[in-house]
Amino acid sequence: KRQGFAEVVYGEGKTAEQIVSIVLALRARNNEILVTRVSKEKAGVILNACPEFTYNETAQIIFWKDEVESKKNKEGYIAVIAAGTSDLRVAEEAAVTAEVLGSSVHRIYDVGVAGIHRLLNHAEEIQQATVSIVVAGMEGALPSVVGGLVSHPVIAVPTSIGYGANFHGLSALLTMLNSCASGISVVNIDNGFGGGYNAVLIHQLAQKGEALKNEDTLL
Amino acid sequence: KRQGFAEVVYGEGKTAEQIVSIVLALRARNNEILVTRVSKEKAGVILNACPEFTYNETAQIIFWKDEVESKKNKEGYIAVIAAGTSDLRVAEEAAVTAEVLGSSVHRIYDVGVAGIHRLLNHAEEIQQATVSIVVAGMEGALPSVVGGLVSHPVIAVPTSIGYGANFHGLSALLTMLNSCASGISVVNIDNGFGGGYNAVLIHQLAQKGEALKNEDTLL
Amino acid sequence: KRQGFAEVVYGEGKTAEQIVSIVLALRARNNEILVTRVSKEKAGVILNACPEFTYNETAQIIFWKDEVESKKNKEGYIAVIAAGTSDLRVAEEAAVTAEVLGSSVHRIYDVGVAGIHRLLNHAEEIQQATVSIVVAGMEGALPSVVGGLVSHPVIAVPTSIGYGANFHGLSALLTMLNSCASGISVVNIDNGFGGGYNAVLIHQLAQKGEALKNEDTLL
Amino acid sequence: KRQGFAEVVYGEGKTAEQIVSIVLALRARNNEILVTRVSKEKAGVILNACPEFTYNETAQIIFWKDEVESKKNKEGYIAVIAAGTSDLRVAEEAAVTAEVLGSSVHRIYDVGVAGIHRLLNHAEEIQQATVSIVVAGMEGALPSVVGGLVSHPVIAVPTSIGYGANFHGLSALLTMLNSCASGISVVNIDNGFGGGYNAVLIHQLAQKGEALKNEDTLL
Amino acid sequence: KRQGFAEVVYGEGKTAEQIVSIVLALRARNNEILVTRVSKEKAGVILNACPEFTYNETAQIIFWKDEVESKKNKEGYIAVIAAGTSDLRVAEEAAVTAEVLGSSVHRIYDVGVAGIHRLLNHAEEIQQATVSIVVAGMEGALPSVVGGLVSHPVIAVPTSIGYGANFHGLSALLTMLNSCASGISVVNIDNGFGGGYNAVLIHQLAQKGEALKNEDTLL
Amino acid sequence: KRQGFAEVVYGEGKTAEQIVSIVLALRARNNEILVTRVSKEKAGVILNACPEFTYNETAQIIFWKDEVESKKNKEGYIAVIAAGTSDLRVAEEAAVTAEVLGSSVHRIYDVGVAGIHRLLNHAEEIQQATVSIVVAGMEGALPSVVGGLVSHPVIAVPTSIGYGANFHGLSALLTMLNSCASGISVVNIDNGFGGGYNAVLIHQLAQKGEALKNEDTLL
Amino acid sequence: KRQGFAEVVYGEGKTAEQIVSIVLALRARNNEILVTRVSKEKAGVILNACPEFTYNETAQIIFWKDEVESKKNKEGYIAVIAAGTSDLRVAEEAAVTAEVLGSSVHRIYDVGVAGIHRLLNHAEEIQQATVSIVVAGMEGALPSVVGGLVSHPVIAVPTSIGYGANFHGLSALLTMLNSCASGISVVNIDNGFGGGYNAVLIHQLAQKGEALKNEDTLL
Amino acid sequence: KRQGFAEVVYGEGKTAEQIVSIVLALRARNNEILVTRVSKEKAGVILNACPEFTYNETAQIIFWKDEVESKKNKEGYIAVIAAGTSDLRVAEEAAVTAEVLGSSVHRIYDVGVAGIHRLLNHAEEIQQATVSIVVAGMEGALPSVVGGLVSHPVIAVPTSIGYGANFHGLSALLTMLNSCASGISVVNIDNGFGGGYNAVLIHQLAQKGEALKNEDTLL
Ligand SMILES: Nc1ncnc2c1ncn2[C@@H]1O[C@H](COP(=O)(O)O)[C@@H](O)[C@H]1O
Ligand SMILES: Nc1ncnc2c1ncn2[C@@H]1O[C@H](COP(=O)(O)O)[C@@H](O)[C@H]1O
Ligand SMILES: Nc1ncnc2c1ncn2[C@@H]1O[C@H](COP(=O)(O)O)[C@@H](O)[C@H]1O
Ligand SMILES: Nc1ncnc2c1ncn2[C@@H]1O[C@H](COP(=O)(O)O)[C@@H](O)[C@H]1O
Ligand SMILES: [Mg+2]
Ligand SMILES: [Mg+2]
Ligand SMILES: [Mg+2]
Ligand SMILES: [Mg+2]
Ligand SMILES: [Mg+2]
Ligand SMILES: [Mg+2]
Ligand SMILES: [Mg+2]
Ligand SMILES: [Mg+2]
Repeated sequence: KRQGFAEVVYGEGKTAEQIVSIVLALRARNNEILVTRVSKEKAGVILNACPEFTYNETAQIIFWKDEVESKKNKEGYIAVIAAGTSDLRVAEEAAVTAEVLGSSVHRIYDVGVAGIHRLLNHAEEIQQATVSIVVAGMEGALPSVVGGLVSHPVIAVPTSIGYGANFHGLSALLTMLNSCASGISVVNIDNGFGGGYNAVLIHQLAQKGEALKNEDTLL
Repeated sequence: KRQGFAEVVYGEGKTAEQIVSIVLALRARNNEILVTRVSKEKAGVILNACPEFTYNETAQIIFWKDEVESKKNKEGYIAVIAAGTSDLRVAEEAAVTAEVLGSSVHRIYDVGVAGIHRLLNHAEEIQQATVSIVVAGMEGALPSVVGGLVSHPVIAVPTSIGYGANFHGLSALLTMLNSCASGISVVNIDNGFGGGYNAVLIHQLAQKGEALKNEDTLL
Repeated sequence: KRQGFAEVVYGEGKTAEQIVSIVLALRARNNEILVTRVSKEKAGVILNACPEFTYNETAQIIFWKDEVESKKNKEGYIAVIAAGTSDLRVAEEAAVTAEVLGSSVHRIYDVGVAGIHRLLNHAEEIQQATVSIVVAGMEGALPSVVGGLVSHPVIAVPTSIGYGANFHGLSALLTMLNSCASGISVVNIDNGFGGGYNAVLIHQLAQKGEALKNEDTLL
Repeated sequence: KRQGFAEVVYGEGKTAEQIVSIVLALRARNNEILVTRVSKEKAGVILNACPEFTYNETAQIIFWKDEVESKKNKEGYIAVIAAGTSDLRVAEEAAVTAEVLGSSVHRIYDVGVAGIHRLLNHAEEIQQATVSIVVAGMEGALPSVVGGLVSHPVIAVPTSIGYGANFHGLSALLTMLNSCASGISVVNIDNGFGGGYNAVLIHQLAQKGEALKNEDTLL
Repeated sequence: KRQGFAEVVYGEGKTAEQIVSIVLALRARNNEILVTRVSKEKAGVILNACPEFTYNETAQIIFWKDEVESKKNKEGYIAVIAAGTSDLRVAEEAAVTAEVLGSSVHRIYDVGVAGIHRLLNHAEEIQQATVSIVVAGMEGALPSVVGGLVSHPVIAVPTSIGYGANFHGLSALLTMLNSCASGISVVNIDNGFGGGYNAVLIHQLAQKGEALKNEDTLL
Repeated sequence: KRQGFAEVVYGEGKTAEQIVSIVLALRARNNEILVTRVSKEKAGVILNACPEFTYNETAQIIFWKDEVESKKNKEGYIAVIAAGTSDLRVAEEAAVTAEVLGSSVHRIYDVGVAGIHRLLNHAEEIQQATVSIVVAGMEGALPSVVGGLVSHPVIAVPTSIGYGANFHGLSALLTMLNSCASGISVVNIDNGFGGGYNAVLIHQLAQKGEALKNEDTLL
Repeated sequence: KRQGFAEVVYGEGKTAEQIVSIVLALRARNNEILVTRVSKEKAGVILNACPEFTYNETAQIIFWKDEVESKKNKEGYIAVIAAGTSDLRVAEEAAVTAEVLGSSVHRIYDVGVAGIHRLLNHAEEIQQATVSIVVAGMEGALPSVVGGLVSHPVIAVPTSIGYGANFHGLSALLTMLNSCASGISVVNIDNGFGGGYNAVLIHQLAQKGEALKNEDTLL
Repeated sequence: KRQGFAEVVYGEGKTAEQIVSIVLALRARNNEILVTRVSKEKAGVILNACPEFTYNETAQIIFWKDEVESKKNKEGYIAVIAAGTSDLRVAEEAAVTAEVLGSSVHRIYDVGVAGIHRLLNHAEEIQQATVSIVVAGMEGALPSVVGGLVSHPVIAVPTSIGYGANFHGLSALLTMLNSCASGISVVNIDNGFGGGYNAVLIHQLAQKGEALKNEDTLL
């Protein structure tokens, strides 16, 4: 196994058949398997061959987890924050990734900056999180506002949602890189997986008590 | 006179001497004269030759206004909103432009999105304005938040303040163009003058009662 | 309701079924509903379920308005100006938005800058408007010429129409942002809705006499 | 000599001393010599060494022409059209280039698109030209309007004048390339020389009667 | 009629039916009609309704010309120069445009810069032309080489042919704008029509003898 | 105080005098003060007025820390990894920021990807860190290699070091955003401060035992 | 034949029928024929007509080679190095091109920078090569690492594989151009053919002993 | 020593004093030392301290070579080809690099594509070279033409020379990457050193007879 106990496969550009054979090989050696960017059509084929897997259609993720829960990050949770319905695919890619890799997730959706009070209504829930993932397209301003509300790390995920001068996510990406709030770092456009993965790495470090040592953990 | 009673000169790239002779010619025919982008050095030379002019150093504007106050937009005010000290030159270019052209201005500075509560402390003052000018550099997210708070028109002015991936203001510009709040329109990077001018045009239209007709007014 | 009496839904990326259920929920609480970016196919499905709605195919808009006309902006009109047939979808998105939100619209189409006299033939009609929306693709020069003719605010809407070095509307967008005419502000590429919405906000402010106060009106 | 009787030297990046020695060598073999992009300082040094040369400071051009006038393009003239004072260096680079290479030039300056009537006041003078050079910065919309007024070729020269989203002339360049008027072709940003040179090539072809054959002429 | 005797319609984005009705209206008032960017499918429909029109599939142009040949540019010819088979659509758009508008055309194809001797084999034919149109994609270097060979005007037409770092024609466009050969001007990416039209305007001017005056000619 | 006990001032574009007065005001209310982007010249003036501050010239940072060490992150360390001497300013901005905010730092410099074995010689030291900051200009490949070696979070900081097609740091920025190694997130070009700040937030979370609760800590 | 004994045809945008007739004509005059960018569908048609050709589906190449092996580059081999399965099409385009043109190829795949030890396991095999072709998408960091390991020339081939901020291969391209390892040169995005061709030219030069002279060889 | 017997230092951004101490340290361990990007001022200081070094002002290179000539590449030569005087700094950086690293160089300057016959006059000298380095700014077309003339590898070096739409060398870079001639690979803008270094690696491989084995040679 490459980097840890969980194995992640990037499904884009692979056929259902290729994914099935990769996944069967991996199952022998891993406790968790995650395949991202899997369309509903491909998922049908894969689940037929691997019925113990689960498909999350919004997240476009197929995953399998064994029962051993020792790795579970027991303390705290990750907040996944997004504005509207359009960014949900990416937000769910982040959220499901984090859950499969062992973290609890609080989803706080429909809280765009143009309606700031809906976001503020969730301020406490967000501030109590160990780490936040903020997903936003169009102008991508949400991470700046969240970053100013919290004192924990914020992983910003720009999406390609929008049109015209959003230039396929460039607009949101630049916004996030230039944020004047401290404590924000950024992953690639539409990279919900990267957002979830980074957040879990941090969440893992924040486990007090009996947490596993870094090197024999998750990733 | 080009477009109305007030005459505006773009000072960038003109020598102090050129500005003096333009300004003297204009004074004969206009009630208000505004010269933007005038450095302190040039201003010294110009004020020497035209002592009745006033220089605002932060705004980098030289202006002159005669006493006839009939054009004054008596009802309401324009809110000029900016985040930090770095954007002040552009914010003041907008504010001073608006004042010289006949509007009252409320300045609401130091209210960046990374400290959302400072902005919200001013919510009522902003909502009561007839029109808002929102000036922001770096990620340029402020207009989106303001746009969500108010039901009047917002003129967004991106600035070139920042570094790295702000690409000289491109970041803030794209953010503002992609705003998911309605009621926002955008002018060129660092174009404080354009922000002030557009706001005055709107403020003028909003004058009830004895307001001058459109065609014989200000601009 | 989020921002006022009228409710606007962005139809792109939503299925007909999703739109139907959103729209039915909104009808209970709003006097006007506007859904933009609705293809002819989706419109058929929606109108079946909601027969009291109207579909404007060029504008790609579905809308519904109740009979109470008290919000109508009675004084003045908005000029919607466009060059050719290619920009009509965006121009009509602006015009229909403005009409549904309560303004009268004068359409002045087929007046590109390459045939300047056709534009000048309409000069008086344009100058009498309270506010103008100027829609242009390719080189996007029309707002500059209109801006020089009028002394009211101009909302410029760049479109993605063109090919090659227009880079999907970037060319027209940059032209409009750099306009040497004063009084022009710009919305996102192809954002006819934004053009119409901004114009109505201004038109609303310009209502003399018994106009509603800002906060209990339209948006 | 490389391409004809006139020899052109690009002065940028060459020292005054280098230019002097190039120019002395060329004088033996050419009837006309033109050096572009020569600052006032360099010009002082060069004129000292070559007193029979003339310096045009606005155009930043040094030139020398012998007395033989047989190459003169006797019929018609080239119109050089520009908006404001900021574009004059480039406009004059075009105009002086054209004059030294043997054409008559009509300068039509201060006719920006934001004041369309000033341009239209010159319509007949522009239409009578054999070819037009249109120089514009910022939004660069002037060539489209001129192109619609005339039925002769228009050479468009974008300039880097402007700020913010003009991106050093990119805005004007894209505008001109996307012009919806026919009969417009474009040269590099700030390339007044190229504008003048192309116009003379066309003007030369348009000489009726005793005009020299293409191959033994000017360039 | 807009700009002259010939009328040009841009077919892209218009249905066959729309084109038919435009064309029938124009036929009453014009001697020549040219419709560009017409696919084979649309052409079938149009020719059915307008059997006197001709379709050139490579050029994607439909045209009609009446018999009056008085406008024909009798002296000289236009050289249309292109590298490979991939650029032929654009080259033929230029060539057919020029022919319909009244010029003779010499096609010199398959002469890319990577095989310079094939180009040089045609040097004399190219040099004898009145004006050249040079069409090139990928690196777009051909106009520079041709520009160095000839002393007449060169209209450069970049194409979007290529992949990767050609960025849909940007590479060829920039190459042509930066050409170090004099006498080159540039039109939009893939704008074969613009190349042909500009060349005819120049060719027309070069008609000695009984040529029509500028204002009552072609365009 | 805005976000915690430590206060950070962005020194760029502020005069030495402005910084002195800000810093004096902050000292009354904070335990740690950090001013970034301070040139040697400005630092001289500031240290004169505030002799208890320390200046780190490479990092271009002035800071002050009181004696109370209770906030110190006692367990683990942050690795700051950089390739060559050119990136040291940014690397030290990150390292000094982290130290002032309470973390131990291991500097691992001169380990560029073109000499992979020097990096591998430090593999264990890097793997033992709680979090890594990787600073790189030019091609910016270092974070990908480090990301593959470690199982903790990596904060990647692109720098503007390089020339030509690095486009002022764009090259390194894009490289890092597209990294195929998991666990990497990115801050703005040259934002060493952001790298250090994010790393400390994570390091703080990783303190086992008696660590302060999130909300009453550092930032 | 244009440039040597082998003839290469770029299949993109040509129909199967066009390729068949080109290939039949070339066979008479050449010892090797290579057609790149041929889809499986087209390949079926072509092989039917030309059964002596071979199709490599991954490489999307059709080729034919006569039996004369005298041109074979007998000494040494070319290493083709690539990270993952996504870049295989381009890597195989390079590898098959090199083989058809007469070189031995060692394929070293699945060695991305995020798992540096897999690459290092192949260090000796790579170092023994005469020249390396390194194919990489996403961040494109692989050539820098390889360049640091070897003292022979490296041809870097960026691919368009990736999403978001990879901007269709721009990210990998810039990375490779900015490499801080010496001895790397770069070809166009996805240009596996160019990588293979350049490598063979170098491999050919490196033939000691009885190698053919440059001018009567391969290309 | 990092990669071979010769040691190369990038002088940009290092002080003369830093360079002196680096160079003194290296001299103990290397046979050849090369410092690039050294201004005349710095060179004066360095040569004072290290009088056995030589400075080439055009190339901006300081170097030292010991007497042992065994590494000299005795067979063949490298052609360095450039258009005009403006590209000489980069061309000489390439040429001097190649000479110091042990190759003979033939300089073929003043052969731009706009005067193709001057280039063709040198065709044989270029074709006889083992490898060519082609340096070009502005449109950067020269490598395509050279690539078509020769059957050996061509290293293309774009320069930032030019203005306007050359975008600091982007134009030439894209031209070279898109070349339709085979056998061309590209290095970074203005990277004369990279051009020279790559060419020497290839030249070295082409040494027949007693040439050193790859691993104990030059680099
Ligand atoms: N065509 C449009 N372009 C841009 N924004 C729009 C458009 N139509 C609607 N909107 C905005 O999108 C919001 C609704 O988004 P949603 O909640 O996704 O339906 C509205 O309140 C409008 O502000
Ligand atoms: N201002 C200018 N912009 C662009 N090209 C120019 C300019 N002035 C001269 N040239 C061209 O540069 C060539 C001379 O370049 P050079 O040999 O470097 O002096 C002339 O033949 C012209 O084609
Ligand atoms: N070098 C830096 N780069 C980016 N942001 C910084 C830097 N230094 C400080 N900051 C941020 O700028 C804020 C202070 O800005 P200001 O109020 O203008 O001094 C701090 O709270 C930090 O978040
Ligand atoms: N995949 C490829 N990418 C780039 N250039 C290619 C490719 N395949 C062939 N070529 C080049 O294209 C030329 C043939 O182009 P064509 O004449 O259009 O078939 C060959 O001589 C090669 O130089
Ligand atoms: Mg925070
Ligand atoms: Mg609002
Ligand atoms: Mg106006
Ligand atoms: Mg015209
Ligand atoms: Mg020429
Ligand atoms: Mg890792
Ligand atoms: Mg190497
Ligand atoms: Mg070749």
